[in-house]
Amino acid sequence: MRIWLVTLLTAASLMFSPFSQAEETPENLILIIGDGMGMPYLSAYRYFKDGRAHTDVADVERTLFDRYFVGTASTYPADDTWVTDSAAGATALATGIKTYNGAISVDADHKPLTTMMEIAKDNGYLAATVATTRLTHATPAGFFTHVPSRRMEHDIARQFATPNTKGEYVFDLIVGSGSNKFRFTNDDGEHVDYLSDMQAGGVNVVESFAELTQQRQLPVAAFMHENNFPYVIDDKPRLAQMVQESLRLLATQDKPYVLMIEASMIDWCGHGNDIACAMHEMKELELALAFLADYVDERGDTALVLTADHSTGGLTLGADGQYQWRAAKVNRINRSLRSIATELADMPLVDWQDFISQHIPFPLSTEQQSQLNTVAALTSSDKWREINKILVDIVRFHTGSGFTTGGHTGEDVPVIAIGPWASHFQGQQDHTDIAKQYIDWIKKAHN
Amino acid sequence: MRIWLVTLLTAASLMFSPFSQAEETPENLILIIGDGMGMPYLSAYRYFKDGRAHTDVADVERTLFDRYFVGTASTYPADDTWVTDSAAGATALATGIKTYNGAISVDADHKPLTTMMEIAKDNGYLAATVATTRLTHATPAGFFTHVPSRRMEHDIARQFATPNTKGEYVFDLIVGSGSNKFRFTNDDGEHVDYLSDMQAGGVNVVESFAELTQQRQLPVAAFMHENNFPYVIDDKPRLAQMVQESLRLLATQDKPYVLMIEASMIDWCGHGNDIACAMHEMKELELALAFLADYVDERGDTALVLTADHSTGGLTLGADGQYQWRAAKVNRINRSLRSIATELADMPLVDWQDFISQHIPFPLSTEQQSQLNTVAALTSSDKWREINKILVDIVRFHTGSGFTTGGHTGEDVPVIAIGPWASHFQGQQDHTDIAKQYIDWIKKAHN
Repeated sequence: MRIWLVTLLTAASLMFSPFSQAEETPENLILIIGDGMGMPYLSAYRYFKDGRAHTDVADVERTLFDRYFVGTASTYPADDTWVTDSAAGATALATGIKTYNGAISVDADHKPLTTMMEIAKDNGYLAATVATTRLTHATPAGFFTHVPSRRMEHDIARQFATPNTKGEYVFDLIVGSGSNKFRFTNDDGEHVDYLSDMQAGGVNVVESFAELTQQRQLPVAAFMHENNFPYVIDDKPRLAQMVQESLRLLATQDKPYVLMIEASMIDWCGHGNDIACAMHEMKELELALAFLADYVDERGDTALVLTADHSTGGLTLGADGQYQWRAAKVNRINRSLRSIATELADMPLVDWQDFISQHIPFPLSTEQQSQLNTVAALTSSDKWREINKILVDIVRFHTGSGFTTGGHTGEDVPVIAIGPWASHFQGQQDHTDIAKQYIDWIKKAHN
Repeated sequence: MRIWLVTLLTAASLMFSPFSQAEETPENLILIIGDGMGMPYLSAYRYFKDGRAHTDVADVERTLFDRYFVGTASTYPADDTWVTDSAAGATALATGIKTYNGAISVDADHKPLTTMMEIAKDNGYLAATVATTRLTHATPAGFFTHVPSRRMEHDIARQFATPNTKGEYVFDLIVGSGSNKFRFTNDDGEHVDYLSDMQAGGVNVVESFAELTQQRQLPVAAFMHENNFPYVIDDKPRLAQMVQESLRLLATQDKPYVLMIEASMIDWCGHGNDIACAMHEMKELELALAFLADYVDERGDTALVLTADHSTGGLTLGADGQYQWRAAKVNRINRSLRSIATELADMPLVDWQDFISQHIPFPLSTEQQSQLNTVAALTSSDKWREINKILVDIVRFHTGSGFTTGGHTGEDVPVIAIGPWASHFQGQQDHTDIAKQYIDWIKKAHN
């Protein structure tokens, strides 16, 4: 009788053990931020990927976002609004603390808030980031630097480029764009070159993807473009490639890592109310996620969470009383509206119709045609903006993509998680809860 | 050694047993449909409930929707669009099968699709519904009746009122409004009275809430209003009260039940782009949910899922470039815009400003004032619609509530689940999956 009881307890304790795999602290932490990727972007991307006016409902394929969707997160900042910007959003996700819009990991008194990357470095982790924007832009900046305003990009660059007293940098690996924020002529006419400074301090600084693939040793600072990346709809895929190179480099050291990946340009397309542009950025992100899902599954020691800092543009599937969102038409648009508008601005009106029909292949209404004729006569330097507005209207009319704003909105964002620790992020939470969990794991790992 | 092994296996099989509580078939099934309750309504309601321009971020309280949120559901219909109407949505949730927009539980060939209420009756369950709309409206209709068009409300009423060959009705309990679809003069000038027919057939037909509370025996058909319910912002709470009475009546028989509850008017407020109206309907639903959460927790034998059939209006928190959604201002609006507009339409212009300021207490811009003056001069019968449009613009301007449409949109909707079976609905799913799970449980219960 006694044996039975002991055995039962032993079996039970084995099964409910706090030391079962999913309860151990993960070795590596990956946090992906789809900038501006609100909930509607996930639904839209599923139907965009399906790719046609659907007739057979049986075969609408779920995306990787669907497959690993576990919950949502509220995103409001600390100041008097429910709508966050990317700076306060990055701060919340990097530090677990809410701050005011515009702040890069500082509090209301401009005091630095410790980021998960700093805590990672203190605990023997490698600290890394990959972004499809300038490394001095709000989201990557919030994980490594501290300034009272996101606009202080040269200060952000300086902080990236300044080693501590032991000669160590705040990062082991940064991959993105924006070398012109690190190498510039300042207001006093002096030439500043933080890239050379970093190089002198032992950082391998590279300025192309080809060079990145040649690197064999950390630390690395890699810039794919002087300023911004082009929209992926106008260019070739790059996020998955940069992520793969980054994981290769992180594997060169026998240390765990914290990696923040930002799919930065979903937000930019959202600000432009450019649905095709946004869908191609989502595709970029899903390609990276496909690689990472396999990686996480194979390793079994890595936690991965994908969320957004906020939603952008107020996207809805259907607009203006139409019970339609025309995914097939979104698929037929093959350039960003901004790049089309910019090119049109310098093109004689006689060539417009042909050019537009190559990239937005829908018949124009008489009114749309007449609006284009009017705006073609403008000579202002921001003529492209006026053209862009008309293109947005044309796409809204033909695809049923509704937008309420050129800015951000305050709805909860998706939380997607892969790997044995996914259940920690189930249900509705605040974005700071994600950061707190990551920071908690980092602190626990070596204690 | 042999004893140990056997014991271990026994302990293990006990723990992973398919007969553990959460794996048993639930006794009772409750399905709540928040008509039009897209994801943004959950975020909006949290901040609306918080009730003020927030200054202390620490105390934003989670709602019951947040607490029990488990996943999302796609909602596209079978015809050539990604945006569903309430008829196809109800059919999907009632039968597990997608159909065309407008269809009430029939397929593309107008053949009836068996509903979970019919399966429930066949398996010894009580079949019940509570709705804050006409019982012949799309959502309740889809759970009990079959017609090729949702507009055929008299046919829907006839099906409710027609017993089978055994003298049994398709329902045991229906509580809602719309007695005028059951008692009317038809196109041939004949008086039709399905209410008397039902009464003659043994149904207790009542036409007020007070009468409903007096009922002691099923079947019951209860109508709170001849036509529609007023918006709750213009009236007093009723959903939780009707639900409580319904559960009391269902308990009079020693049978399990399937209960569909529709919070119908979130959708109507959404169609009207009336944010305060929608928030008060959400409050109604949360009050009902508070009661039901306790009920489900206490019983332990009842599964509860709350979802939406679609989102309505294309609501976003923030609009027109403003990084603001002013929950405190939404709280200060104390009537539905439609009722304000209707009343203004019959009021001399001299009284308008005072009346508007009582219900929408925000300063009007010169332009808004001038628009109101212009529309006041109209004499058309739909003058209220023109007034309503201006009120919507005023509220959008002051609260930052964006809307893209007067119709529905195609984004995934929330899935909220309470009770031991909640985990079945975690993550992203299709709305038909919810119906299939419910139908599966109903069929399994007695087999």
